[in-house]
Amino acid sequence: MAAISINVSTVKPLGDRIFVKVSPAEEKTAGGILLPDNAQEKPQIGEVVAVGPGKRNDDGSRSELDVKVGDKVLYSKYAGTDVKLSGEDYVLLSEKDILASVA
Amino acid sequence: MAAISINVSTVKPLGDRIFVKVSPAEEKTAGGILLPDNAQEKPQIGEVVAVGPGKRNDDGSRSELDVKVGDKVLYSKYAGTDVKLSGEDYVLLSEKDILASVA
Amino acid sequence: MAAISINVSTVKPLGDRIFVKVSPAEEKTAGGILLPDNAQEKPQIGEVVAVGPGKRNDDGSRSELDVKVGDKVLYSKYAGTDVKLSGEDYVLLSEKDILASVA
Amino acid sequence: MAAISINVSTVKPLGDRIFVKVSPAEEKTAGGILLPDNAQEKPQIGEVVAVGPGKRNDDGSRSELDVKVGDKVLYSKYAGTDVKLSGEDYVLLSEKDILASVA
Amino acid sequence: MAAISINVSTVKPLGDRIFVKVSPAEEKTAGGILLPDNAQEKPQIGEVVAVGPGKRNDDGSRSELDVKVGDKVLYSKYAGTDVKLSGEDYVLLSEKDILASVA
Amino acid sequence: MAAISINVSTVKPLGDRIFVKVSPAEEKTAGGILLPDNAQEKPQIGEVVAVGPGKRNDDGSRSELDVKVGDKVLYSKYAGTDVKLSGEDYVLLSEKDILASVA
Amino acid sequence: MAAISINVSTVKPLGDRIFVKVSPAEEKTAGGILLPDNAQEKPQIGEVVAVGPGKRNDDGSRSELDVKVGDKVLYSKYAGTDVKLSGEDYVLLSEKDILASVA
Repeated sequence: MAAISINVSTVKPLGDRIFVKVSPAEEKTAGGILLPDNAQEKPQIGEVVAVGPGKRNDDGSRSELDVKVGDKVLYSKYAGTDVKLSGEDYVLLSEKDILASVA
Repeated sequence: MAAISINVSTVKPLGDRIFVKVSPAEEKTAGGILLPDNAQEKPQIGEVVAVGPGKRNDDGSRSELDVKVGDKVLYSKYAGTDVKLSGEDYVLLSEKDILASVA
Repeated sequence: MAAISINVSTVKPLGDRIFVKVSPAEEKTAGGILLPDNAQEKPQIGEVVAVGPGKRNDDGSRSELDVKVGDKVLYSKYAGTDVKLSGEDYVLLSEKDILASVA
Repeated sequence: MAAISINVSTVKPLGDRIFVKVSPAEEKTAGGILLPDNAQEKPQIGEVVAVGPGKRNDDGSRSELDVKVGDKVLYSKYAGTDVKLSGEDYVLLSEKDILASVA
Repeated sequence: MAAISINVSTVKPLGDRIFVKVSPAEEKTAGGILLPDNAQEKPQIGEVVAVGPGKRNDDGSRSELDVKVGDKVLYSKYAGTDVKLSGEDYVLLSEKDILASVA
Repeated sequence: MAAISINVSTVKPLGDRIFVKVSPAEEKTAGGILLPDNAQEKPQIGEVVAVGPGKRNDDGSRSELDVKVGDKVLYSKYAGTDVKLSGEDYVLLSEKDILASVA
Repeated sequence: MAAISINVSTVKPLGDRIFVKVSPAEEKTAGGILLPDNAQEKPQIGEVVAVGPGKRNDDGSRSELDVKVGDKVLYSKYAGTDVKLSGEDYVLLSEKDILASVA
């Protein structure tokens, strides 16, 4: 099998998954957020790059996702699957791991 | 990617999540509440700053949340995700983590 | 933010939660109940002070709670969240933690 | 708050809970039952003293319980919540903890 | 309370429970079955003595059980609750613990 | 109770259970399959000997099984209950433990 | 029983399972993906070789799968069951283990 080459624009999340570009930690401090030391679940900021078609309902229809490409989101640092592409950090999250949109 | 700057007014909780400003501990004692030493789940007080649109029902509709902006709420200290903004403590909770409104 | 002052009458439980004033242990012995030493789950007695509007059903309606203000109830000692107000013990329980009404 | 005095006749189980008077162990041997030493879950015998109104169905109706006051029942020893009243042993069980009626 | 005397014919399983007389191990070897040493879940053989009315469906109706009195069944050794009556071994199983009928 | 004698043809799986004759390991290697050493869940091959009537749906109807007698199947080695009859290895599986048909 | 010989073309996944040819690690690096060292769940790339008929819905119908033969997919490395055929690595995944299509 030939090599599979992937890049950001070809990643299409399935179901209710969301593809997010992770915001660098130093910028986040610049942006005003400071994580408390005793935070049980440290939140992380990122920008939505691609969204799945939504979760299938029991009757086969789909619930459209509440976030869209371009949204800045707060999510739990320990959620999802990390992916590094061209030296940049991305994460594939389920919609339930998104806590809030922030901008 | 440019820095994402967030502040309290731009945080928009998703689903049934609720954004709460944590009430400082010393004020709480002044307010009359004393946590028992042997409390299994220590309650915490805060004020609701923003609420999500509600949880989606199985048929795709939404159940509106029972708390609204401005409500003072009692919630479990170990629930949710802590967020610090401009030196103040906030927490993102699911509605089920809210035990009672208190004022 | 100004201090939040709470007292018993302002506590309004959410959902199927119930606010119960804990009955002191010495009175309970006087009342005839003796907990076996080997009890796996020690029951506790209290009086219902406030009840929530009930749990939401899947269709958005609510199931009214089976206990009402003034009921004396038996509940599992290890359930719920303890709250101390003006030196008295209260507990916030879910209806499922109430085992029986006792008077 | 005045003392809460409870006795057997005032205990009213909630939901699908069942109030059972535990049968003393020596009588059970007389009654012919012998628990195997290697029993993973030792069964226990008792008599139903009071039953709850039944579990609420999803549509808000109730499923009446399958046991009634006076039934002799076999239940798992490690289920439920033990209560001692006037020196006698009782247990509050969920209907699912009742294995069989035995007389 | 007088002694509760129980015998095989008075045991009436509740719900989807099934009352099974355990087949002695030596007979099983004679019957051709040999349990592998590395079996993760050792199967056991027995004869159905009594069956419950079936599990309640969500709408309150019942699903009749698939086994009937007299069936020889294969079940997981570690399932259910052991009961010894008049020196013989019985077991109270849920229908899901029955793997197959065998004769 | 007389001895219960069982043989392959009398085993009738219940519900969604499937009775499978295990394919010997040496033949499997001959058949071209090689299990990786670091496999988290080692697959196993076998031939379906008998199938249950299918799982009951919520409305009491049944979903027919997707495998039939004679199918060669791949299943997880650590699933199900091993049974040895006349010196040969069999396994009772739930349909969900079958990964694929293979011939 | 004669030997069961299996090869790639005869593997037919059941239900919502998907048969994927694993992409070699060295090619993946060539393809631009680099797994972060601290990734909690390392993603893996592969090509879909065969798909099951889809998961049965509660009413007995099926939800067709969202991936099809030939899709390049990103999946969690620790999901599914590894199978080696003719010296090549394959994996049997459930659809929920597929994170995204990538080409």
